[in-house]
Amino acid sequence: MSDFSATRRFFDLPRGVIYLDGNSLGPLPRHAAQRVAGMMTAEWGTQLIRGWNDAGWMDLPARVGDRIAPLIGAAPGTVTMGDTLSIKVYQALDAALSLRPKRRVILSDTGNFPSDLYMAQGLIRTLNAGHELRVVAPEAVADAIDQDTAVLLLTEVDYRTGRLHDMADLTARARAAGALTVWDLAHSAGALPVDVARAGADFAIGCTYKYLNGGPGAPGFIYVAPEHVDRIHPALSGWLGHAAPFAFDATYRPAPGIHRLRIGTPPILGLTALDAALDVWDNVAMVDVRQASGALGDLMIREVATHCPDLTLASPADRTRRGSQVSFRHPQGYAIMQALIARGVIGDFRAPDLIRFGLTPLYIGPDDIRAAVAILAEILATRAWDHPDFHRRAAVT
Amino acid sequence: MSDFSATRRFFDLPRGVIYLDGNSLGPLPRHAAQRVAGMMTAEWGTQLIRGWNDAGWMDLPARVGDRIAPLIGAAPGTVTMGDTLSIKVYQALDAALSLRPKRRVILSDTGNFPSDLYMAQGLIRTLNAGHELRVVAPEAVADAIDQDTAVLLLTEVDYRTGRLHDMADLTARARAAGALTVWDLAHSAGALPVDVARAGADFAIGCTYKYLNGGPGAPGFIYVAPEHVDRIHPALSGWLGHAAPFAFDATYRPAPGIHRLRIGTPPILGLTALDAALDVWDNVAMVDVRQASGALGDLMIREVATHCPDLTLASPADRTRRGSQVSFRHPQGYAIMQALIARGVIGDFRAPDLIRFGLTPLYIGPDDIRAAVAILAEILATRAWDHPDFHRRAAVT
Repeated sequence: MSDFSATRRFFDLPRGVIYLDGNSLGPLPRHAAQRVAGMMTAEWGTQLIRGWNDAGWMDLPARVGDRIAPLIGAAPGTVTMGDTLSIKVYQALDAALSLRPKRRVILSDTGNFPSDLYMAQGLIRTLNAGHELRVVAPEAVADAIDQDTAVLLLTEVDYRTGRLHDMADLTARARAAGALTVWDLAHSAGALPVDVARAGADFAIGCTYKYLNGGPGAPGFIYVAPEHVDRIHPALSGWLGHAAPFAFDATYRPAPGIHRLRIGTPPILGLTALDAALDVWDNVAMVDVRQASGALGDLMIREVATHCPDLTLASPADRTRRGSQVSFRHPQGYAIMQALIARGVIGDFRAPDLIRFGLTPLYIGPDDIRAAVAILAEILATRAWDHPDFHRRAAVT
Repeated sequence: MSDFSATRRFFDLPRGVIYLDGNSLGPLPRHAAQRVAGMMTAEWGTQLIRGWNDAGWMDLPARVGDRIAPLIGAAPGTVTMGDTLSIKVYQALDAALSLRPKRRVILSDTGNFPSDLYMAQGLIRTLNAGHELRVVAPEAVADAIDQDTAVLLLTEVDYRTGRLHDMADLTARARAAGALTVWDLAHSAGALPVDVARAGADFAIGCTYKYLNGGPGAPGFIYVAPEHVDRIHPALSGWLGHAAPFAFDATYRPAPGIHRLRIGTPPILGLTALDAALDVWDNVAMVDVRQASGALGDLMIREVATHCPDLTLASPADRTRRGSQVSFRHPQGYAIMQALIARGVIGDFRAPDLIRFGLTPLYIGPDDIRAAVAILAEILATRAWDHPDFHRRAAVT
């Protein structure tokens, strides 16, 4: 079991705040601003265009990808960075569909993040080849996989409830039915052990601003199983995914391996901040993080059951079946979250009635959970949202 | 006529360097590193997730777009930011093709940047509807526009020679033939006056790390003519282009106006650096920049003709027909550019034989041009590349 005091010092959290929203935006790593400013002055400022080679900017997507790879069970050289998670969804889905040319169904679930569904809808319109996005309830996914399924597109952890899909089982089922899988790891990478290689996942994608603490709008990542990557002809065929970008050929020819999933010029500022944020994983084991976040979740569920009986648990009570968050329902969820934020307890609200708390042992401990639930209990006991001045006060926080 | 001493002070250029590669990567604005580090600590570090509203991150693509709009002759609210230029090519082309459903030809030229052609090729494969990318010589474009042309896809300034297309004339010809235009302004925005609205351009796209000095991998921009924007159903339909992103609907519904061209979470670090870089335009007129860069180009052409007779001019001699660069040919172009860089004169080489110099009056003056050509003349006179130790020395610069 890790002692998390070192990882707590890694982050620069404001005083008086209990931050339970690292599943939306991770906090600032203490050295990230200096690292980015240093890159700007020492590399951009002095090397100028030469930074692409001399400072290694051109290889940064691969180097940062290789730091994320072990966090998701991927081999070196199988992950690259860039753009956003939404773009990575489009790339992965398009590639997967091209590998299953006779099938027409993209299977997903109502627990998937809407942008994944939107990108699938956009791709289907663009392909104009009779594909169908079939969206079922999360618990109906396993039985909905069939011979028509081209691709199973799922987010492993439900962004609202924290319900965790069984990646290994669903991937095996998909494979048995001849379908491919695209796993969105937005709420997994940095939160719990993932093993895309062992599970046999075909594609995995994710963002890096949640549990990987890369900062607002940090770049996305994409993993492609080695058995597929050299058969992919990318739809988004940009010059930095070309086999020889600086030959300036008139015709696209995909680069070897994962590099063909690059598109345009990589975002060096964002990648540098992310690279700094990934330092935290040099000294902490994911299995310990998972153990600790499960315990934090159990503690929060117990404390809420004891002190906040009006809240209904929306997450699985079994820690092995949930990701790194717990959520509760209350008809006044929005007002409750506003009141919590006004008191320095930052979580998230998701319509219509969900309050959601990200549990991140890197910088949150049991005392934080107890303190947060005490404040929550007080808000519920006093029905803060009934006070005439509540909404005015909440509006200025 | 502007005095550029204030804009020179705006940039932090290393001593001993004459930087003639601002058309690849603009230099560091003096206050940009502090601005980004300040955003990271004061906004990300203390506001955390609340920065999306309280620090205005969510609106940053629109606000930065509104600062670029006047530089390209676009009305407020018609430009948005994000992703990369390559992604913006895909968005613009896809939208344009959807507005001309009966036509099948994307017309471009051999002077276009290869990534634009690659993205067109990728889109054509994805659409799988019989579209054709027709690539002609730059001087053949006007006559190649016909009733089959769905979209004219051109980069206004040729990245190799600096040859400038006549945007107003070609746009009018395309319009007369019933075709739409997508103008790539990578080498135009920040370099010369552009007026997309007056020209009647339908779409314009660009990067911001060249003449707009946004830093390595800074985000792209896209302009859509107001008459079209509400008829576009984006192929890359991400959640931040949704009419109500935080309603988390299962079905994509495009946001009003230019906002539907947003895709995923915007890159706040990159946008912040760019926002700082755009401050330079608060105190300088584009018409003065253009006048000065034309004069710098004329000077360089004269100086080279006098002192470097072995070089062949590859750019139009008439300043009204070229962008903000001059290029020359020499069989030893690569070695010459290596030798120049070793002497602190930074330009670019483009295979097979082109040396290219970006002329940026914001921080380059006539004395820089004279000094650069004197060094160039010395390299040519001594045939530096014939010396046995040249390649070793060049390799370590």
